Amino acid sequence: MKEFQWPERVTVREVGLRDGLQSIARTLPTSQKLQWIQGAYDAGVREIEVGSFVPPKLMPQLADTAELVTFAKTLPGMCVSVLVPNLKGAERAMAAGADWMLLPLSVSHAHSLANLRKAPDDVVAEIGAIVEARRMAGSHCKIEVGMSTALGCTLQGRVEVPEVLRLIQAVLALGVDRVGLADTVGYADPRQVGDLFTQAREVAGDRLACGHFHDTRGLGLANVMAALQAGENRFDACLAGIGGCPHAPGASGNVATEDLVYLMGSMGIATGIDLQALLTLRQQLTGWLAGECLHGSIAQAGLPKTYTNPQNARLSA
Amino acid sequence: MKEFQWPERVTVREVGLRDGLQSIARTLPTSQKLQWIQGAYDAGVREIEVGSFVPPKLMPQLADTAELVTFAKTLPGMCVSVLVPNLKGAERAMAAGADWMLLPLSVSHAHSLANLRKAPDDVVAEIGAIVEARRMAGSHCKIEVGMSTALGCTLQGRVEVPEVLRLIQAVLALGVDRVGLADTVGYADPRQVGDLFTQAREVAGDRLACGHFHDTRGLGLANVMAALQAGENRFDACLAGIGGCPHAPGASGNVATEDLVYLMGSMGIATGIDLQALLTLRQQLTGWLAGECLHGSIAQAGLPKTYTNPQNARLSA
Repeated sequence: MKEFQWPERVTVREVGLRDGLQSIARTLPTSQKLQWIQGAYDAGVREIEVGSFVPPKLMPQLADTAELVTFAKTLPGMCVSVLVPNLKGAERAMAAGADWMLLPLSVSHAHSLANLRKAPDDVVAEIGAIVEARRMAGSHCKIEVGMSTALGCTLQGRVEVPEVLRLIQAVLALGVDRVGLADTVGYADPRQVGDLFTQAREVAGDRLACGHFHDTRGLGLANVMAALQAGENRFDACLAGIGGCPHAPGASGNVATEDLVYLMGSMGIATGIDLQALLTLRQQLTGWLAGECLHGSIAQAGLPKTYTNPQNARLSA
Repeated sequence: MKEFQWPERVTVREVGLRDGLQSIARTLPTSQKLQWIQGAYDAGVREIEVGSFVPPKLMPQLADTAELVTFAKTLPGMCVSVLVPNLKGAERAMAAGADWMLLPLSVSHAHSLANLRKAPDDVVAEIGAIVEARRMAGSHCKIEVGMSTALGCTLQGRVEVPEVLRLIQAVLALGVDRVGLADTVGYADPRQVGDLFTQAREVAGDRLACGHFHDTRGLGLANVMAALQAGENRFDACLAGIGGCPHAPGASGNVATEDLVYLMGSMGIATGIDLQALLTLRQQLTGWLAGECLHGSIAQAGLPKTYTNPQNARLSA
């Protein structure tokens, strides 16, 4: 690790309102979601995924996504993402004024069929149609493809690196703005993560721009470290470690936003997020989600007396 | 991480019978401790810390340490360690026939006073007396000094690297066989760990031979990774993540042995430990410690279907 140049800053994108809430049966009232978005903003969060444009009957918990986009866009400097599973969802995302639409592309054939009812190459074709629709609409909404199950799949098992790279090349060739790599089911280990991010960066360059890790088997933050050391500097996380995938049995819990911010802050790497403010927001969320299984270590143990993060002072908008 | 050469093998020392049980009020019956030692051996564990030669009135949970040493020494190839706080304890360790005595040396002045009622340099003097007593006795019992609070202290706060290095040099000059670095209270971050292990290795060479991490704030395995990347290949761990320090408020939970073995196995690094057998033993321990707060992720989530570790086949004795 001696020659490694640590970054001065990483970006943490809060995805709890989408990846977290979609895995929880109860519907959080819109008023509480708005408080969550405002609280995250006040703590310094500047990238947030607020929901998903899936059919409301499939995911009634996320039916208020358009309203959340509208609100989040009133916060100066907030970059607003939404998940989009298909062309129809993309049209809704553009109409709502989201900054980014996140298109999931499962590398695992089995997971792709279970999650999107399409094979990976058919999803690539749909992504092509979305890129074209964006062009036709003259929309400025950017497109990120999230490569799900890029590090393993509960249904299929192993996922081969050449297949990940092939699909990355395919969607970049279509003109998407960036790609991210997701350990959707918590199968990854740090060595594998370092190897995959290194190889993917050779293909995608700086258009590889997100690491999304679930902490299912306790390796979430070790995997974040491995991706960081392989040059990644944007990470998804869910407040209180909520999250999962309804079509990947056993998958549960994104890395907790507050633990990720603590990890970075303790290493002197700025996130722009005020950890104490984030922990206060987590406390509120704990009340809203009473009875749900929450995660995360730092909220339980408390900050070390040595923890200072002046460089993490809240960003001005 | 590209140039890093991953080791083929790391050593995991089970320290639950000492570091774990000393923090739990109930006394585990000797018969169950013997089953634990046998079960660990059967799973492939070949280094184990079975207890501590502290005065029994201070730690009645560990009063049967001599008996445990005797039993563990009947297992072919088992390397048996005991914690020793002072000269009297060292004499008992040598008489019992332990392979290694572990002498704690708190780098934090405040923690040293609280834990051993001596300043660090007075502990160094006691270690000198122990080295001399070993020579006089003609004992083959080896000596490892565990540098506690080497990465921070709940009482004192920051612990300075030069002080860690100074104390390492002092005890190596006395003739101890090796030293280890401990994050006793879970304050460490991976960047700090990588830096300290790198600097300590420059001073101690291969006589730096243990990383001991608590998972208090969720960074335990990330810290293990950082030490591994800085050349460390022996780690302490407690089955089910039990452990802590009665004089370091807030400290709880070593990295869980089963999670550490999973981490290494998933990266193709052999530990010689059969993870399934270890999980069966953990299940037994869960029964013995019913009501206690246990930790660890892999026991809860289960192994990925992709997990295979042929290189981890049980070692022959």
